[in-house]
Amino acid sequence: MASLGNSGATSSPMVILAPKTKTKKKHFVQQKVKVFRASDPVQSVFMWGVNHSINDLNQVPVPVMLLPDDFKANTKIKVNNHLFNKENLPGHFKFKEYCPQVFRNLRERFGIEDLDYQVSLTRSPPVRSSEAQGEGLLLNSYDRTLVIKQISSEDVADMHSILSEYHQHIVKCHGSTLLPQFLGMYRVSVESEETYLIVMRNMFSHRLVVHRKYDLKGSLVSREASDKERGKELPTFKDMDFRNNMQKVYVSEEQKEKFMEKLNKDVEFLVKLKIMDYSLLLGIHDVGRAEREEEEQGDEPPNEEDAEAENGLAPAATVGSYGTSPEGIAGYMSSCKPLGPGEFDPYVDVYAVASIPGAPQREVYFMGLIDVLTQYDTKKKAAHAAKTVKHGAGAEISTVHPEQYAKRFRDFISNIFAWALQNPVSLSNSLEK
Amino acid sequence: MASLGNSGATSSPMVILAPKTKTKKKHFVQQKVKVFRASDPVQSVFMWGVNHSINDLNQVPVPVMLLPDDFKANTKIKVNNHLFNKENLPGHFKFKEYCPQVFRNLRERFGIEDLDYQVSLTRSPPVRSSEAQGEGLLLNSYDRTLVIKQISSEDVADMHSILSEYHQHIVKCHGSTLLPQFLGMYRVSVESEETYLIVMRNMFSHRLVVHRKYDLKGSLVSREASDKERGKELPTFKDMDFRNNMQKVYVSEEQKEKFMEKLNKDVEFLVKLKIMDYSLLLGIHDVGRAEREEEEQGDEPPNEEDAEAENGLAPAATVGSYGTSPEGIAGYMSSCKPLGPGEFDPYVDVYAVASIPGAPQREVYFMGLIDVLTQYDTKKKAAHAAKTVKHGAGAEISTVHPEQYAKRFRDFISNIFAWALQNPVSLSNSLEK
Repeated sequence: MASLGNSGATSSPMVILAPKTKTKKKHFVQQKVKVFRASDPVQSVFMWGVNHSINDLNQVPVPVMLLPDDFKANTKIKVNNHLFNKENLPGHFKFKEYCPQVFRNLRERFGIEDLDYQVSLTRSPPVRSSEAQGEGLLLNSYDRTLVIKQISSEDVADMHSILSEYHQHIVKCHGSTLLPQFLGMYRVSVESEETYLIVMRNMFSHRLVVHRKYDLKGSLVSREASDKERGKELPTFKDMDFRNNMQKVYVSEEQKEKFMEKLNKDVEFLVKLKIMDYSLLLGIHDVGRAEREEEEQGDEPPNEEDAEAENGLAPAATVGSYGTSPEGIAGYMSSCKPLGPGEFDPYVDVYAVASIPGAPQREVYFMGLIDVLTQYDTKKKAAHAAKTVKHGAGAEISTVHPEQYAKRFRDFISNIFAWALQNPVSLSNSLEK
Repeated sequence: MASLGNSGATSSPMVILAPKTKTKKKHFVQQKVKVFRASDPVQSVFMWGVNHSINDLNQVPVPVMLLPDDFKANTKIKVNNHLFNKENLPGHFKFKEYCPQVFRNLRERFGIEDLDYQVSLTRSPPVRSSEAQGEGLLLNSYDRTLVIKQISSEDVADMHSILSEYHQHIVKCHGSTLLPQFLGMYRVSVESEETYLIVMRNMFSHRLVVHRKYDLKGSLVSREASDKERGKELPTFKDMDFRNNMQKVYVSEEQKEKFMEKLNKDVEFLVKLKIMDYSLLLGIHDVGRAEREEEEQGDEPPNEEDAEAENGLAPAATVGSYGTSPEGIAGYMSSCKPLGPGEFDPYVDVYAVASIPGAPQREVYFMGLIDVLTQYDTKKKAAHAAKTVKHGAGAEISTVHPEQYAKRFRDFISNIFAWALQNPVSLSNSLEK
């Protein structure tokens, strides 16, 4: 099944790699020589290719407006190195970028500068996500602002078929969406093996650890985490678990309305494209737990500098050389002022919403739509037939028509919020009942 | 005949394009979008390729030392653009760079920063030299610091065969040489036509006009400019003309010694490689004439800004955005302080020597060795046989063995200087005789 940004896409690196909650003011210098030497030649070529692509685009004028041809465009580059740079890159490789002008425009609309995008993806190698279960590459950019996901050639075709409408939708909503932020799509060829990769903004935080994670579809049939899943460090819980856990999202009425407005527009867009089977990915950062964990870690000797050196980051830098050189997507934020526990920069962690004061726990929620590439026409007919036989026509099944799917999804999601949270007093009343 | 940096290589753009003698302090901003759109697709691809090459090299570590493999290395890149950037570049092209690490090292030894090299070659399209007589491309970088010359595939092979020795020579002489400064060698393929290009430092000035030009070999046989040549705006005069014109080079004894020391080392190197048929290119800038010409031009309305706009240079810039961004090879110089008539920056115009005070005319001489790719073994046997028959074995012919050629060349060149110029009094005495 073709799917994008599935629930595993953005999970465990948060646990393993997120730094201490208090962001310290750090100054990274731009490395004099960037070397695209990742452990995997595909990753090395990916880094090389993104670097090349952004350098190249920097020389191509921005069109006054995108034309239909831009949605069919691509640029291919083939490299043969003879006795040159063989320590860092394969001798022969190819790199293809799809619709470069479209994705450049999308990056701009999502507020991501090309030079920051380049730095985030190439200054240090991306980090492999441990959630990648042999189904293809799943990486986080070294600064954890971006997700790099291996997709199938069918996914590439699906992306092409929806890209024009997706772009229109992003224009209309001014980049304010719960959909995945698609930022670039590439093909890497090494030793005649082709790897398709899509880059998206990380729906979770680049620095706040996600402690609990849900994948919600609005259906209760077969929507429960398996025992195997529960054994993981950060299991993906589902709709049934959400109900059984009495889980709620504690945000202000205003935040909820803003969220539902976005959701309705996005779901409308998905219905129009006959897309279904998408999920709401919900990540929860527990501020108190993060503080406790940081205190515990505080006893251990700090080895931050070692870790940075391993990442290939310059360990220290003079302020003078800092200047205005691009610092990656999260760079400007972290250089601005230190963030306290549970604080985030809404321009970097765009999917984040903080819990309302007076909520039972201080939390930060990360909510976005994932798995948005399944179109009813192409994928669901067979599955629909199969499930109808199994559960009977009236059963509450996950496989329905796009309009039904959307209605059920919206109904379910509108109920994940705790009631009347705009008033802390009424909240505590309702909890005491 | 394979030849590099022939006498036409660096001539007429000086006349046509050199600005007024007084260098004004100019601040160019780096363009936001560089577009490699030259009139000729080969040039567009060349600019694209150099830009790519320098960006790419910036990611490749500098080796501790060059290894034999580096002298056989190359990197090839093939680009296919589909519905992308077709206004500026051919849809399909290839770019090959020869021995990237070697030329990077040579650039460093010649005091040329890679980013300046990149800017000089790519910020605006190179300018076609009117001396190019249908024998291939002959270009000056837009800032006139570099020469881009089309060469044959045999020249490329010859360069490979001498490159290791050439590099050793440059190491030994610490980059201080009269030989051409070879800075990069490339192949551009557009529509299955291959164009080989070599980049060298301009032996003439990027701003002082050359008013008279000689190509000296030390032989008098057939070494006179033809009537056709004399009809040109800047004819290439030869050995006989030099003698007939009573031409002399008026430099101090110290300058002459420095020059002859370099020449002897360079000629020794050429003999070792059995190279011959090279010339001394001598360009003469007449300071007084330049001043008079500038005064005459002063009456005309200035249209400098128009010319700059056409060149794609930003016409004006705030000092703040100037910063430390690379300004091309001549950029730092011109931003430092205005130069007066006949003044030059020896780090930019490295082949320049000023006339001694008290010389009959105030002049600046540009002297370097050209046509250094003709090896005796491969090229001269046939020509030698032919000329011996024509002139008899004892005649003073141009085609001799490398050692003979070198001796005759050195003898001739050591006599181009005016006598006892270290003492202005004795000079005026000698002139009054």
